[in-house]
Amino acid sequence: MGFAIGVDLGGTNLRIAAVDESGALVEKVTTGTQVKRGRDAVIDDMVAAIRALTSKFQGKSKLLGVGIGVPGIIDKYTGMVRESPNLPGWSDYPVRDVIEQKLQTPIFLENDANVAALGENWLGAAKGNDDVCMITLGTGVGGGLVLRQRVWHGMTGMAGEIGHMTVDPNGPRCGCGSFGCLEAYASATAVVRMAREAIAGGQADQLKRTASDDAEFSARSVFNLALQGDGPARQIFAKVGWALGIGLANLINLLNLRMYVIGGGVSAGWQAFAPTMFEEVFRRCFVYAATVPDEIQGPQEGASAELKPLASARRTIITRALLGSDAGLYGAARLPMLGVEMTEHAHIPAFQK
Amino acid sequence: MGFAIGVDLGGTNLRIAAVDESGALVEKVTTGTQVKRGRDAVIDDMVAAIRALTSKFQGKSKLLGVGIGVPGIIDKYTGMVRESPNLPGWSDYPVRDVIEQKLQTPIFLENDANVAALGENWLGAAKGNDDVCMITLGTGVGGGLVLRQRVWHGMTGMAGEIGHMTVDPNGPRCGCGSFGCLEAYASATAVVRMAREAIAGGQADQLKRTASDDAEFSARSVFNLALQGDGPARQIFAKVGWALGIGLANLINLLNLRMYVIGGGVSAGWQAFAPTMFEEVFRRCFVYAATVPDEIQGPQEGASAELKPLASARRTIITRALLGSDAGLYGAARLPMLGVEMTEHAHIPAFQK
Repeated sequence: MGFAIGVDLGGTNLRIAAVDESGALVEKVTTGTQVKRGRDAVIDDMVAAIRALTSKFQGKSKLLGVGIGVPGIIDKYTGMVRESPNLPGWSDYPVRDVIEQKLQTPIFLENDANVAALGENWLGAAKGNDDVCMITLGTGVGGGLVLRQRVWHGMTGMAGEIGHMTVDPNGPRCGCGSFGCLEAYASATAVVRMAREAIAGGQADQLKRTASDDAEFSARSVFNLALQGDGPARQIFAKVGWALGIGLANLINLLNLRMYVIGGGVSAGWQAFAPTMFEEVFRRCFVYAATVPDEIQGPQEGASAELKPLASARRTIITRALLGSDAGLYGAARLPMLGVEMTEHAHIPAFQK
Repeated sequence: MGFAIGVDLGGTNLRIAAVDESGALVEKVTTGTQVKRGRDAVIDDMVAAIRALTSKFQGKSKLLGVGIGVPGIIDKYTGMVRESPNLPGWSDYPVRDVIEQKLQTPIFLENDANVAALGENWLGAAKGNDDVCMITLGTGVGGGLVLRQRVWHGMTGMAGEIGHMTVDPNGPRCGCGSFGCLEAYASATAVVRMAREAIAGGQADQLKRTASDDAEFSARSVFNLALQGDGPARQIFAKVGWALGIGLANLINLLNLRMYVIGGGVSAGWQAFAPTMFEEVFRRCFVYAATVPDEIQGPQEGASAELKPLASARRTIITRALLGSDAGLYGAARLPMLGVEMTEHAHIPAFQK
């Protein structure tokens, strides 16, 4: 059985795993390498760690390649990282080709939200499904689209930017320059922003107290207050759910997939945002509209809800991710197993299949 | 060379064409059959017309099957028409199986917006592209998604409902029950509604005069006024473009396709809605955001505009459809040529490939 290396090039740490074709995690390494040490140091350490890992399997198992999940936009043609605020100095540098040359094995760069979707599709919440759409609620909102078990890249590898779907054209300004993006409502950053707005509005005493007591005031702090029944905190998560519901309804109307998986840190607040999320989904899903009366019940914590289509036993499922931060590691390792795509490595005849 | 039959089961007429595998339209028949005569009469006439057409090619060319474009939602598994306001009495009836039995050839039912997308992809504006998203602006707003040259059906054949993407969650109520759908802004029905709202507002004298003079006051009438420079009429089409721009930006952010094609009757108003459409697209396209300053010029009539991605020569193209109402005929005929999909005919072993 062959194996592959999955790399999670996070904003803080570098994690590397050897995963075999059955999905078993053979070995996992978290290097001390911090991404802030700079591109060349990270690449050198990554290459050394991968060499050390693979040498253990020499002669026993075939290395299929290395997949790297990157927090940024990837150009699949050039193998370069584009627009990654967390990876200064990585843009306009032939990352894939440089690592490929060092390791002499196919390297696959992939957006971190895409590898998470692939991991959940392979071994997590969407296991056994051909298609899945995953929304990752982190500092920003990432999206990954897996169609026929492969990441859907689109023309230039930039598909899946679900976080920048417009939820309300008159909504708050998003970091991308647009207004009312899903990310401006459902990211950890947005939750904290909405909390500060509520505090500034003067109607959120509990939030105010928590924010001034807690040096690490975060989306998690707001969620904890919501769990305790604090009105303003609950309203913030209701807004998160409202925005997610609109985004999900758009995805369902457009793609009609079976599985929509929600992951990332803010997904821990499921209990607080799920009711309004499902409410909006039921309201706005064209093809499922007629099922509203039966289904519109606040789901239980951790429970997924299924949308019944009108005349069919097949259901749409919206559920939480299962693999946590390992989804990206598994998904990255999955990339070489899925083989070379048309859009990739077109410049390297040796890798063409 | 084989040939196939394409059927356009429109709201008013029944059109049938024989198309060969090269895309040549061999023969086209418009029957006198009106859909309002009822399901069984239409099916009988359709079957008779197809028999007459195919008998001409007997022994000369192989019939690959029949594709039927239907104005409604199709369940690909059951081969039934669901939710078609224009086809009363067709729901919950095994349309595909009944026709299959009569003609003894594979029958493919497909949503009319999907066959239009397939037709434009095969022979029209998106010719030569693997992937295309088409938006059809008619009485309603239809959508068709072609990925890898095939209609993307999703789980139950209900994908591509772009008309029910939320543009503004607080927008006008849509026929589907939701609020602020694209269809509530960019359909012919919406254009007329917005005109009547402007007239009721008392600030649209020209529109008011035209509406009372013209028994067939329509989206076309509003467009004609917009062309003449009438302010309120221009504002209506600016709103059409605004809504389309938000929808297109969502599609681009999510799918990153190369081609987006806009067809249907209201697309004749391109000149009036294109400027605001492109403005919103540029504003809201995450991955293309940095190109705004260069590109934000009012495009010429009939011209398509290309979005330059940041670091690549590959461009997103938003353009008008080319085939008019024949797109659906060609696309329907294309269905049997593409062969059987996993989700179709699973119940008929003889057709399995």
